[in-house]
Amino acid sequence: MSSKYSPIIHGYFRSSCSWRVRIAFALKGIAFDQVPVNLIKDGGQQFTEQYKGLNPMQQVPAVQIDGIMLSQSLAVIQYIEETRTGHRLLPADPKKRAQVRMISDFIASGIQPVQNLYVLQKMGAEKVQWAHHFIQRGFEALEPILKETAGKYCVGDEISMADICLVPQVYNAERFKVDVDQFPTIKRLNQTLLKVDAFKESHPSCQLDTPAEICT
Amino acid sequence: MSSKYSPIIHGYFRSSCSWRVRIAFALKGIAFDQVPVNLIKDGGQQFTEQYKGLNPMQQVPAVQIDGIMLSQSLAVIQYIEETRTGHRLLPADPKKRAQVRMISDFIASGIQPVQNLYVLQKMGAEKVQWAHHFIQRGFEALEPILKETAGKYCVGDEISMADICLVPQVYNAERFKVDVDQFPTIKRLNQTLLKVDAFKESHPSCQLDTPAEICT
Repeated sequence: MSSKYSPIIHGYFRSSCSWRVRIAFALKGIAFDQVPVNLIKDGGQQFTEQYKGLNPMQQVPAVQIDGIMLSQSLAVIQYIEETRTGHRLLPADPKKRAQVRMISDFIASGIQPVQNLYVLQKMGAEKVQWAHHFIQRGFEALEPILKETAGKYCVGDEISMADICLVPQVYNAERFKVDVDQFPTIKRLNQTLLKVDAFKESHPSCQLDTPAEICT
Repeated sequence: MSSKYSPIIHGYFRSSCSWRVRIAFALKGIAFDQVPVNLIKDGGQQFTEQYKGLNPMQQVPAVQIDGIMLSQSLAVIQYIEETRTGHRLLPADPKKRAQVRMISDFIASGIQPVQNLYVLQKMGAEKVQWAHHFIQRGFEALEPILKETAGKYCVGDEISMADICLVPQVYNAERFKVDVDQFPTIKRLNQTLLKVDAFKESHPSCQLDTPAEICT
């Protein structure tokens, strides 16, 4: 249950970076409020002066927490990891922590930004082909890495920040018609994770700003 | 002085992600060996089967350290932070740590990937204009954030991972003709940091694979 001290996530149901943060809060059992920022309507509500005042990066998510505003999903996730108890989002072992960060950063820096809305808007008609190309290429690199590091989840047998990044990226891959059957490890991990409550309740298909026609 | 136990950085003199890692090692006082990977020559040495075996992401840097291979510069930097003493690369205060990560991730995920070599190669003739657009846009967002967080350096008065990300990004901005005079905080921080030994000795202008004609 949220309270007046709950963190506020300014996000968008379909934004993969917003979804990452929702998963992390759910795994930690932290109640939060959400303020929808519609990235499409009115030319994008992230470009309003009001939102720019909150987050000059003009992206979602932006999180108000403990008296500060934080943006960038991995920074938010690591902040709650360092200030809250509950499910550990990074392993205790430094080498495994590094592998979790490597996989997370590869998705968050190497794949997602190149198929991000503001890049695709600049691409025009070629946008689906462009997004497909870079996700396909990214997954070709990710598959052999996950084959080495994965146990039940991306790194060993604990759900970590890497899993939080993987599932929303697979969701994007499917939107852009990448055939995930080519990547058996990615496919298996995604299927396993989608059965976990924190991933289910935070899914884009069931958020308060999900349009009724795609709500499931 | 390096030894047979020294980490090995596989990198490229002008890669901003390689430069980040060189700065971090220099700040920590960790000796390392370098293996140049020429991203241009022979169609890109990062695409050889040999390099792909080392780093399936086919990017630089890749770092061999403590018996593992790590890629993704921020994962490497945070790994050495968690396993080595020496200059602290993230502040002790959790809120400041979060701000350092937010700024680092904004550069590493929000600016650099969109002007990365493999994206630009797909852009063809428009590549300079494309890179200029996204760096300009990124710096317009970064300037007001740094104005809030900066002291002598990006976050307060300690050199951190955020500074390690900033300086190579300014170097890229200058390559793509972004007028840094528009951003007084970014300009001041960059000028201050370029006087610090760790930034000077790791600079692209003086690496072992820097072509003689641009060596200074």
